[in-house]
Amino acid sequence: MGDVVEMLGAGLAPGVVVTDPEVMAAYARDMASFSAVGDPLAVVMPRTVEDVQHVMRTATAARVPVVPQGARTGLSGGANAVDGCIVLSLAKMDRILEIDPVDRVAVVEPGVVNAVLSRAVAERGLYYPPDPSSWEQCTIGGNIGTGAGGLCCVKYGVTAEYVLGLDVVLADGRLLSTGRRTAKGVAGYDLTRLFVGSEGTLGVVVKAVVALRPAPPQQLALVAEFPSASAACAAICTIMERGHVPSLLELMDGTTIRAVNAMAQMGLPESTEALLLAAFDTPDPAADLAALGELCTAAGATEVVPAQDAAESEMLLQARRLSLTALERVSTATMIDDVCVPRGRLGEMLDGVAAIAAEYDLTIGVCAHAGDGNTHPVVCFDAHDPDESRRARESFDAIMALGLELGGTITGEHGVGLLKKDWLARELGPTALELQRGVKAVFDPLGLLNPGKVF
Amino acid sequence: MGDVVEMLGAGLAPGVVVTDPEVMAAYARDMASFSAVGDPLAVVMPRTVEDVQHVMRTATAARVPVVPQGARTGLSGGANAVDGCIVLSLAKMDRILEIDPVDRVAVVEPGVVNAVLSRAVAERGLYYPPDPSSWEQCTIGGNIGTGAGGLCCVKYGVTAEYVLGLDVVLADGRLLSTGRRTAKGVAGYDLTRLFVGSEGTLGVVVKAVVALRPAPPQQLALVAEFPSASAACAAICTIMERGHVPSLLELMDGTTIRAVNAMAQMGLPESTEALLLAAFDTPDPAADLAALGELCTAAGATEVVPAQDAAESEMLLQARRLSLTALERVSTATMIDDVCVPRGRLGEMLDGVAAIAAEYDLTIGVCAHAGDGNTHPVVCFDAHDPDESRRARESFDAIMALGLELGGTITGEHGVGLLKKDWLARELGPTALELQRGVKAVFDPLGLLNPGKVF
Repeated sequence: MGDVVEMLGAGLAPGVVVTDPEVMAAYARDMASFSAVGDPLAVVMPRTVEDVQHVMRTATAARVPVVPQGARTGLSGGANAVDGCIVLSLAKMDRILEIDPVDRVAVVEPGVVNAVLSRAVAERGLYYPPDPSSWEQCTIGGNIGTGAGGLCCVKYGVTAEYVLGLDVVLADGRLLSTGRRTAKGVAGYDLTRLFVGSEGTLGVVVKAVVALRPAPPQQLALVAEFPSASAACAAICTIMERGHVPSLLELMDGTTIRAVNAMAQMGLPESTEALLLAAFDTPDPAADLAALGELCTAAGATEVVPAQDAAESEMLLQARRLSLTALERVSTATMIDDVCVPRGRLGEMLDGVAAIAAEYDLTIGVCAHAGDGNTHPVVCFDAHDPDESRRARESFDAIMALGLELGGTITGEHGVGLLKKDWLARELGPTALELQRGVKAVFDPLGLLNPGKVF
Repeated sequence: MGDVVEMLGAGLAPGVVVTDPEVMAAYARDMASFSAVGDPLAVVMPRTVEDVQHVMRTATAARVPVVPQGARTGLSGGANAVDGCIVLSLAKMDRILEIDPVDRVAVVEPGVVNAVLSRAVAERGLYYPPDPSSWEQCTIGGNIGTGAGGLCCVKYGVTAEYVLGLDVVLADGRLLSTGRRTAKGVAGYDLTRLFVGSEGTLGVVVKAVVALRPAPPQQLALVAEFPSASAACAAICTIMERGHVPSLLELMDGTTIRAVNAMAQMGLPESTEALLLAAFDTPDPAADLAALGELCTAAGATEVVPAQDAAESEMLLQARRLSLTALERVSTATMIDDVCVPRGRLGEMLDGVAAIAAEYDLTIGVCAHAGDGNTHPVVCFDAHDPDESRRARESFDAIMALGLELGGTITGEHGVGLLKKDWLARELGPTALELQRGVKAVFDPLGLLNPGKVF
């Protein structure tokens, strides 16, 4: 394996190949619990497309696996090293190459941090919607790899809808350009979309053309308190059925509310079993919020608190933003699930998760991109307690089984990675799985790219 | 081949298999000029998924090609029969299975006509945006096959953005389900999107889950007259740069204006070299139109006519809707191109097409989904004049070459079919083409589905 490190180094500038054990350990994993981590033989941090091509040519020549990485904020083990692999961190290819307000596109390298792009385009009066919770750390390349979502999706959709074209280094080192920078285009199969959400198993994204929108007005938020999760979910269904288009529609269950209170003393009402958070970025958000608030009251909300301005809106959303951190303090470890159900089934999902928490005797808090039906049940457990750890793993599986039963998917925005491999087969069935493996083999016949992930 | 017809008939109800020569001739082609048409051995009009499975199993057993069809309104020869094929018309699988206003989805069979679906969802306060010109005839299955667009795309995007999940009968007769009915989902590769725009070469769509939106307010339109196409294109760039989000942004060049006048005596100003049509479906469209109108005036518009109400808007748009019919009357035949360029290059595209018309001594009118940079240059020629026909074909190619030169694509929304096969290779390059062929082989290893199309 020393040979491979030598071969890598021969074509790359000093410092690009790192074999320092501490650095390798740091780059060996993402943020998922319960997922296997291997020992890489090197971490490579390319600066150019040619660097990436050299890495892939070397990997192909030496038959060494490659694990592409963004910022390792993923929650499914998709970026974890496998034994003897090259960890290929794209974090240092982080230039914004172009922002074009007429074509409404940005052209970026994969290592650009989501928040950096968002702020850069905002300065030009533009908007890059996808906003995963980790947006201050995660990269556009990582977002493309996982098909990341965020709070914006109920109105603006997910990462996939913003990726127009890609430059990709293939397993054998060839450079592929897919897609376009035009608003439309149907020339051949949509390979661009195939790469989005492929978790580094088909190629290494080295450049992306992403679509931008004009910056919308500042959003205005409200919070509505409900006596039960199912009442809040019924309100959400009515909101969508009546044709509202909120820019944010989130839900926190009672467990999450109490965890946030315990951490941040926010004075959220302890007796409330669900907080619904909604926002509009329309020309008259106050009027839209008033209509939505009335609808919440009619659906059983005990209190509706609309913000008066942007600062108050931010305060209201603070509780939602703290949810995960607060739930992480409940015990020594968490597993964050990502089940998305048709929004008409959201109430059943929430009730079902509560039943699973009771059955497995665990704290499971749910926060949800409720407008999308995308729940994040957070299983809290003591990692030092083997029985509790086993129950955590089993409850996590039970949550996915429930999601599939309700016509949903095991992953709305986090990806499959290592954590949900077995479940992917269950969701897709044998025919789809066979075709997906066939597609993988077309792009990566030697199986070198992120092996053992997804399938 | 009699055997194949017998095998087909053995598993299908009477009347599903048709071998009447007149019917077969009628179903042998779509609306493209200059594209080869073969002799089918039968036309099959399945009513059920099982019918389609029987057809594909028979085709696989007998190694007979199958050409799936919608309403044959396509413009690239993608639905044309090949010799000895089974023409598989999905037009009679035309049920709307479900409209769900909470999940904001419709579930449809492939033969549902676009306008039928649009009206059915409108009755529920919902909106299915994709609106190709042929929307009164074309089917959702055909729209999925070509990745169809329309007038709505500048604000609402193309068909691909509305297809969430598919049931597809594979070449060997197996049934595949892809995607989801949830708002989000990233479980495995996006096979759904792979089928959109695949022109019947990967499988036969037998059911689709499509996303709906709440119905927007009625749109209000304006028309602005410009002394040159490039002035109109510059105005379009400014409109987009300033962050406007019109629901429609179309352009007709001087040739098209005069053709419409000649046909319909609409009294359009003959000296005008470009008409820009814009509309808003916002809460206050009159205010938004006023701002856009001022911007047009500043960009050199000689006249700006805003509509006062929906009826006036429809009248203004009438000229645009008549464009193609009017240009078809210029001579005995037309070829309709579909080149999409980055919108910043639209002016160069229009000027370039005018130069090509002069060079080849032909009438070429351009109407464009200008907000998308998607031009439809319509080459008018006398099909009985061999030299003019040759020049028409050559000018059509010159237009595509120009589009690629400007960073565009040979097809924004019509597809590749037969007409643009050679050009697809030029746009994609050898690496992408090789991968696309590899993907095709995964789904259709015997090459039975719509052979000779696209690649």
